[in-house]
Amino acid sequence: MKLRRSERMVVISNYLLNNPYTLTGLNTFAEKYEAAKSSISEDIAIIKKAFEESSIGHIETVTGASGGVIFTPTISKDEARTIAEELCDRLSESDRILPGGYIYLSDLLSTPSILNNVGRIIANVFQGEKIDAVMTVATKGVPLANAVANVLNVPFVIVRRDLKITEGSTVSVNYASGSSDRIEKMFLSKRSLKPNSRVLIVDDFLKGGGTINGMASLLTEFDSTLVGVAVFADNTQAERDDKFAYKSLLNVSEIDVKNNKVTVEVGNIFQD
Amino acid sequence: MKLRRSERMVVISNYLLNNPYTLTGLNTFAEKYEAAKSSISEDIAIIKKAFEESSIGHIETVTGASGGVIFTPTISKDEARTIAEELCDRLSESDRILPGGYIYLSDLLSTPSILNNVGRIIANVFQGEKIDAVMTVATKGVPLANAVANVLNVPFVIVRRDLKITEGSTVSVNYASGSSDRIEKMFLSKRSLKPNSRVLIVDDFLKGGGTINGMASLLTEFDSTLVGVAVFADNTQAERDDKFAYKSLLNVSEIDVKNNKVTVEVGNIFQD
Repeated sequence: MKLRRSERMVVISNYLLNNPYTLTGLNTFAEKYEAAKSSISEDIAIIKKAFEESSIGHIETVTGASGGVIFTPTISKDEARTIAEELCDRLSESDRILPGGYIYLSDLLSTPSILNNVGRIIANVFQGEKIDAVMTVATKGVPLANAVANVLNVPFVIVRRDLKITEGSTVSVNYASGSSDRIEKMFLSKRSLKPNSRVLIVDDFLKGGGTINGMASLLTEFDSTLVGVAVFADNTQAERDDKFAYKSLLNVSEIDVKNNKVTVEVGNIFQD
Repeated sequence: MKLRRSERMVVISNYLLNNPYTLTGLNTFAEKYEAAKSSISEDIAIIKKAFEESSIGHIETVTGASGGVIFTPTISKDEARTIAEELCDRLSESDRILPGGYIYLSDLLSTPSILNNVGRIIANVFQGEKIDAVMTVATKGVPLANAVANVLNVPFVIVRRDLKITEGSTVSVNYASGSSDRIEKMFLSKRSLKPNSRVLIVDDFLKGGGTINGMASLLTEFDSTLVGVAVFADNTQAERDDKFAYKSLLNVSEIDVKNNKVTVEVGNIFQD
């Protein structure tokens, strides 16, 4: 397909946006769009500048025979903070408080535009970490893990609290649920994670930390390494002994059921 | 931010790709990139041509005071078929057969590049249908619903087979599970779907159709309309009375446990 330069740039940008963290040789583009490799180089230089000036991401050029370009998505501090502040407002809405002091989050975690932005912010924190997989626990963590994995371009693995026939052989661990007085089991399909993986754990709402500890012990069973933990909202009101460093997008410092009031600030991702 | 034309085009394409099915006024771009509206118009014309020539999608221009442009993602028949054929090969791998004649799918449904492509193909089938939400059942349907909802830029709703405190008030229906001899319950949070929504149901693996029938009766409870049903894989070996027209990406015509062989073809999306 022969395209004009301006059209070619649009199409190459689209390709890079859809294939983050992937090395693509310039020849691939040169052949596909019937252009000289030097012209493709010039296109890439313009795209790189545009991506960087608008904080879409950066493009690295790897030289040599097996060289090419790699696109890494990024997000500017300002944009990330604006997104987080909007989410603080949404999370503070008084009608989110459910009996028992729980907060209704499902609408936020099932809106693609929000998920994509949250995925970009969390992935940006761990962009240098060479992550092989994103792990979460079913069900509410799944869209979040999906969003982060999408930006990092790696698979996600879903830990379950129940046994499902369609998962095949599983490995299980015990974990302390809720206020640590109940011991429960969580399961991970043996096929779903390769040994020696570097894993980022993602979850929607952090309270006691029992679920995260459970996932961390599953990682040990799979001879894999915990690279980091990121949560959508951290309930800092909850008591816990922090075994891990958590990165949080939002901080829920108070859930006042009596006065129907939730106090939310931006999380520790924005501290520094 | 003032950009050169070529850079501006890269940045505007990125915006459109991230905001499908959304009307954006040309003034938004003109102000943001300090350019004349007529220049933005010319940029859009080039982007439109590039998007259409490479089947990325089409751009519609709405004229008038409240006018602007709307990007609708598409996929070419050839690209869709190539993707489906690759998935046929993956699904036919003999080590996917689990005891009981189930097929292990979780690895495919947790790889972002696959999910994005599948989302594009399914969304493309329903692009003219004015869909308000995508519905699925936890857990395996979630990434698929997320992928389709992402392309259509609408929220997705997750039906559950268990009751969760964090969902608030729910509506429940009975459905016939498995070979129709067991009646079970499924639940949907009252907050998660607005009345009078037009809904696309998405699921990973279609056997007897009981789960889909259950979701369809939930839609009635929410005064909402079923626009269509799309599944990743249709097990045509299973007996069922088809109440709905299903669109399938893949067709599993035989699971031969004895000889460890799965027969898979492209689904009825490609029939016509």
